[in-house]
Amino acid sequence: MRDRLRTTILTAVGLLAAAAGLVGGGPAPAASAAPTGLYAPSALVLTLAPGRTADRVSRAVTLSCAPTPSGTHPAPAKACARLAQSGGSLRALKGERRFCPALADPVTVTADGVWRGRRVSYRETFGNHCALLSARGEVFDF
Amino acid sequence: MRDRLRTTILTAVGLLAAAAGLVGGGPAPAASAAPTGLYAPSALVLTLAPGRTADRVSRAVTLSCAPTPSGTHPAPAKACARLAQSGGSLRALKGERRFCPALADPVTVTADGVWRGRRVSYRETFGNHCALLSARGEVFDF
Repeated sequence: MRDRLRTTILTAVGLLAAAAGLVGGGPAPAASAAPTGLYAPSALVLTLAPGRTADRVSRAVTLSCAPTPSGTHPAPAKACARLAQSGGSLRALKGERRFCPALADPVTVTADGVWRGRRVSYRETFGNHCALLSARGEVFDF
Repeated sequence: MRDRLRTTILTAVGLLAAAAGLVGGGPAPAASAAPTGLYAPSALVLTLAPGRTADRVSRAVTLSCAPTPSGTHPAPAKACARLAQSGGSLRALKGERRFCPALADPVTVTADGVWRGRRVSYRETFGNHCALLSARGEVFDF
């Protein structure tokens, strides 16, 4: 009987300790909404122009990565994930290498704006659209 | 009997002609969805930085004006309307003139991207935030 009482008390104490651990040691309660100023802004405009200059823009999309991926880019979440992998460097983006025809139909892409508070200014020309996607991937698939 | 047969034949011919007219002369069937290339793109990143340079970006928003106003800008429709009024020129934007303290707390704003297919690159410094809003208005109210 005493053993059983002791076991019960120990179990109760253990449960209480565990509960306290869950409450006290768990992660701090999340803030209800992140204020606008607390994260470094990431907002870009990506453009695509036929030819070797960026002047005659045929397509342009916006991409915002904070607080959540959004924009007129067709796949903002994927594009933001790729940019996070490359540390915000457009030149360091890696596409899924694919076979492209050796066709000279150059395209010039640009990216301007901000990545995590740092200014971004990027311009690069590729032999054709397939070569662009092969080299730089989903960020420029718009 | 011959008259009736003739009428029947004429009616049939008329119906066939009408059907042919409907097929051949009617408007071409509409494409299932408007292709992306039919409107000139308008996509911008607007930034705000304290000080006389644009380097330390404290805020940045995206603004797309075609096909519909969107972006992380807090009032995309108003901002796009203002830009349309100024022909896409950031420097030609007019704010609602207001009284501002003669306080030296400079801010530098930028706009980069595309307006109706033409590249936009704009940077301007104002004596303080109130002077910015007074001069350039809702587009930079973010």
